[in-house]
Amino acid sequence: MSDSRPIGVFDSGIGGLTVVKALRELLPNEDIFYLGDTARLPYGNKSAETVERYSLELADMLIREKAKLIVVACNTVSSVAIPKLRTSVSVPVIGVIEPGAQAAIAMTRNRHVGVIGTRATIRSGAYENALRALNVHVRVSSQACPLLVPLIEEGLLDDKLTDQAIARYLDPIIADGIDTLVLGCTHYPLLARAIGRAIGENVKLVDSAQNCAVAVRNLLDRQSLRASSSAKGKLQVALTDSADNFLGVAKEALQLEIGEVQLREVLHGAAKL
Amino acid sequence: MSDSRPIGVFDSGIGGLTVVKALRELLPNEDIFYLGDTARLPYGNKSAETVERYSLELADMLIREKAKLIVVACNTVSSVAIPKLRTSVSVPVIGVIEPGAQAAIAMTRNRHVGVIGTRATIRSGAYENALRALNVHVRVSSQACPLLVPLIEEGLLDDKLTDQAIARYLDPIIADGIDTLVLGCTHYPLLARAIGRAIGENVKLVDSAQNCAVAVRNLLDRQSLRASSSAKGKLQVALTDSADNFLGVAKEALQLEIGEVQLREVLHGAAKL
Repeated sequence: MSDSRPIGVFDSGIGGLTVVKALRELLPNEDIFYLGDTARLPYGNKSAETVERYSLELADMLIREKAKLIVVACNTVSSVAIPKLRTSVSVPVIGVIEPGAQAAIAMTRNRHVGVIGTRATIRSGAYENALRALNVHVRVSSQACPLLVPLIEEGLLDDKLTDQAIARYLDPIIADGIDTLVLGCTHYPLLARAIGRAIGENVKLVDSAQNCAVAVRNLLDRQSLRASSSAKGKLQVALTDSADNFLGVAKEALQLEIGEVQLREVLHGAAKL
Repeated sequence: MSDSRPIGVFDSGIGGLTVVKALRELLPNEDIFYLGDTARLPYGNKSAETVERYSLELADMLIREKAKLIVVACNTVSSVAIPKLRTSVSVPVIGVIEPGAQAAIAMTRNRHVGVIGTRATIRSGAYENALRALNVHVRVSSQACPLLVPLIEEGLLDDKLTDQAIARYLDPIIADGIDTLVLGCTHYPLLARAIGRAIGENVKLVDSAQNCAVAVRNLLDRQSLRASSSAKGKLQVALTDSADNFLGVAKEALQLEIGEVQLREVLHGAAKL
């Protein structure tokens, strides 16, 4: 038995394409429908109620695309709106935080985990809570890295300026003694190489995008929702406002074939999902 | 005769406080009501229609505060919405672009002017048009500097990282031969010292915030709208969403006494102004 409906993925913008990339590599037979809310980004400084409401609207749009599963490819939304989404949406919902926390707990030897993310994600304490829920003895060193998203969006992925910003953010938590570092922002996998250079071989990197893709595969298997193994998965990308510079950066860095980007208006006031 | 009504100032966020600082220094007797639309920032990537609509809503809120004059302390809005505001609002409207362009034309000796700003402002060509309208023979070298706003908002005003970003943006247009540089973003006066170091003594800096304040003073004089010279001007600051990190940075760097920041809901659908 197989299920040809698409995997629905949403994010406040373009960053979630790193999750799409990981999904395409792990699940090449699956159709993916990606929805980026570029008209209303960034979500990072918006209230929890607003982020919940926006998330329900985006989930509603994905349900109308017949999504069999919804992936929240955004740390801010994952940290705030997942419980509400799970009670409101009729299909399974997977975020990026739980899979990342699970991978970090499996990976750390000294039970000291670092987490980097936007100021909003770090302030939410979502990773800390998820890590502690899995192991009460884990020690967490968190660091907000607010300059990394602008540097990534400018395409400065391998650049002296970016290396210096990374060093400034990471040196203190490396000195703290972490042996595992969670990339707690869907933009950050684009800096995996630069961050790898900064942390050296003794610290292991946890890529939330990759771990999210593994969680999706496991769920599809568990619920018998996989597409036919003979299918060639298609990727559709829709945005709520015209894309800026960063879409080009992401496409090139991720080597994603996106085709024509659709423009969708937000359907306000999602009624019943 | 004097007019005790406040000067209304609005911006998409906090950056316009550099204009407030310049107004306070030049016009210490005037009351100022500042409105920052932090709930909907940034405006830079939004469509012209949306920016116009938002601007009318903010202007409406300032009119309700009895503003005698409206200052658009934002380059994006100035480049897009001033004509519409002028036809819709019953009080004079002053932006940052015309005063900056006038000062640059008065200052340049070799008629070669540099302009730096956000990607949206540079793409709009607003400064280029304003400069050319004043002198058809002027040559303009424009440079978008998208990393400067994030660096400023992080408070890295005198910092090696910021100096390097500035050098990267400015070296080509200095090599081009400009003798005058317009700071075409209301955040940038916070970097005046760092930018001054980068451009040396042969290039003169045009601070749009200061020139905007001069234009406001001239207009108040012309229309007999000055407050009493014995008045002690008050500053009120209202935002449409809670302030983030950057308000603290701006307050400290500008040495502005702000008092309690008010939270205001946007009044949608400004009817008649």
